Amino acid sequence: MKIIHSIPEMQQEALEQKKQGKVVGLVPTMGYFHEGHTSLMQIGREQADYLVISLFVNPLQFGPSEDFDTYPRDFERDKKLARKYEADCIFNPSRKDMYPASPLTRVKVHKLDRYLCGRSRPGHFEGVTTIVAKLYNIILPDLAIFGLKDYQQYIIIKQMTEELHYPIKVIAGPTIREEDGLAMSSRNKNLSSEERQAAPLLYRGLQNARQQFLNGEKDVEKLLNTLRDSLHQSPLYRIDYLAVVDGQKLYPKKHAQRGDVIAAAVFLGKTRLIDKIILE
Amino acid sequence: MKIIHSIPEMQQEALEQKKQGKVVGLVPTMGYFHEGHTSLMQIGREQADYLVISLFVNPLQFGPSEDFDTYPRDFERDKKLARKYEADCIFNPSRKDMYPASPLTRVKVHKLDRYLCGRSRPGHFEGVTTIVAKLYNIILPDLAIFGLKDYQQYIIIKQMTEELHYPIKVIAGPTIREEDGLAMSSRNKNLSSEERQAAPLLYRGLQNARQQFLNGEKDVEKLLNTLRDSLHQSPLYRIDYLAVVDGQKLYPKKHAQRGDVIAAAVFLGKTRLIDKIILE
Repeated sequence: MKIIHSIPEMQQEALEQKKQGKVVGLVPTMGYFHEGHTSLMQIGREQADYLVISLFVNPLQFGPSEDFDTYPRDFERDKKLARKYEADCIFNPSRKDMYPASPLTRVKVHKLDRYLCGRSRPGHFEGVTTIVAKLYNIILPDLAIFGLKDYQQYIIIKQMTEELHYPIKVIAGPTIREEDGLAMSSRNKNLSSEERQAAPLLYRGLQNARQQFLNGEKDVEKLLNTLRDSLHQSPLYRIDYLAVVDGQKLYPKKHAQRGDVIAAAVFLGKTRLIDKIILE
Repeated sequence: MKIIHSIPEMQQEALEQKKQGKVVGLVPTMGYFHEGHTSLMQIGREQADYLVISLFVNPLQFGPSEDFDTYPRDFERDKKLARKYEADCIFNPSRKDMYPASPLTRVKVHKLDRYLCGRSRPGHFEGVTTIVAKLYNIILPDLAIFGLKDYQQYIIIKQMTEELHYPIKVIAGPTIREEDGLAMSSRNKNLSSEERQAAPLLYRGLQNARQQFLNGEKDVEKLLNTLRDSLHQSPLYRIDYLAVVDGQKLYPKKHAQRGDVIAAAVFLGKTRLIDKIILE
């Protein structure tokens, strides 16, 4: 497995692979791998001839008061895992190579970034789409794999990729959960043991709300109350948002229908967790 | 010479050329070719193995009250000229293929788009950088050639290309002029004969101002007065802006120095003309 830090070297390597007719796959990550990441690597390994894992904690997608500094990092462990899952290459650029002193260029997907996390984290998705465009132009992948746990991110990146006509297939990987239902996230590491114990209430609430929907309840307020009831079983939760949105266009709904998504963002202490469930 | 209308077909063709190790060159145009365009084609022909001319009048870079509808078009003539200058391919997509019904994605270069034409034409450069990113992703060029007549456009596209790490070399082509000094532009066709007669006063004014600078005058107001004096020789001019700006960062100057640019945008009747001269 190659470890490449330099942008021109990565570009050269990718071009070389493509000239040999190889299908290049990309799994973009911010590192601190868990089974969510490795499941994306497995999809990549199956579908690509040459699999690149990018590893870069992207400052542009963190707000000024967010957790860029405390975002967990462990490059040595990540290297071992990428090797275990048979990646061909880790691309791990420096911040100064990825961004000039005063970056001016942004890729933005309007409208879809107004809802859910886009509302709570202004500029976040612009940071995501800008870094993904950069990674696309450096790694020149034929396919790129993103986890469905970050559902809004997946929808926005898919829109950006298709609308800018990148010759890249965007593939969705499933949300991977702990045994008690907590969606895997690098941020889970920052939970105290008390917070970790309360964390499964989020997914349990989402499941209850979905069950209520499948039993015939379409009123969004009632579905969200069910979710809220679950969170209120612990005093540790602070709710950022709870919403039922259109599964493709992400606008909020008053009456739920199949294909909609119940999405939630909550704080447990200082740690922000997101999760979602599709109504189907 | 191939004529390709379909985006996937163009992508396929470009990938095929690149797999054969060919250097792909792109001259992006809105058609109605003049010697400005053909000089860019000549540069492309020299530096690329496979030369693509894109021809698309991009609605996204025209404001609602601008001249999208009256922008001159002549595909048959353009085809002949592209063939004469030995292009390998014309890429001529439809509007509906290039833009979905409600486009959401934009590529924007901040700050550099605040000055000069960016100020007079809000959204114009965002339209330009968005379409150029799309063309890059469809035609996958190794080099792309832009005319220096649209100086701000060239600076902004260079910034976008480098900052998003496109593996593309941006090449500047010279401004080509009529014998009387008028910079060639597809829009010149829309001038009445009276307007056409007055048109060379713009470049003459720029030349006078540069001469004054070379004679030692650094005060921007005095340089612009010289340019204004030339324009006032005809009652037909309406000034949009006159400015001396930094040659790279485009911010306005009060005291001119070598490398700065005198830039002007004027209306002759309904036709907007731009021109510039570098202080060197």
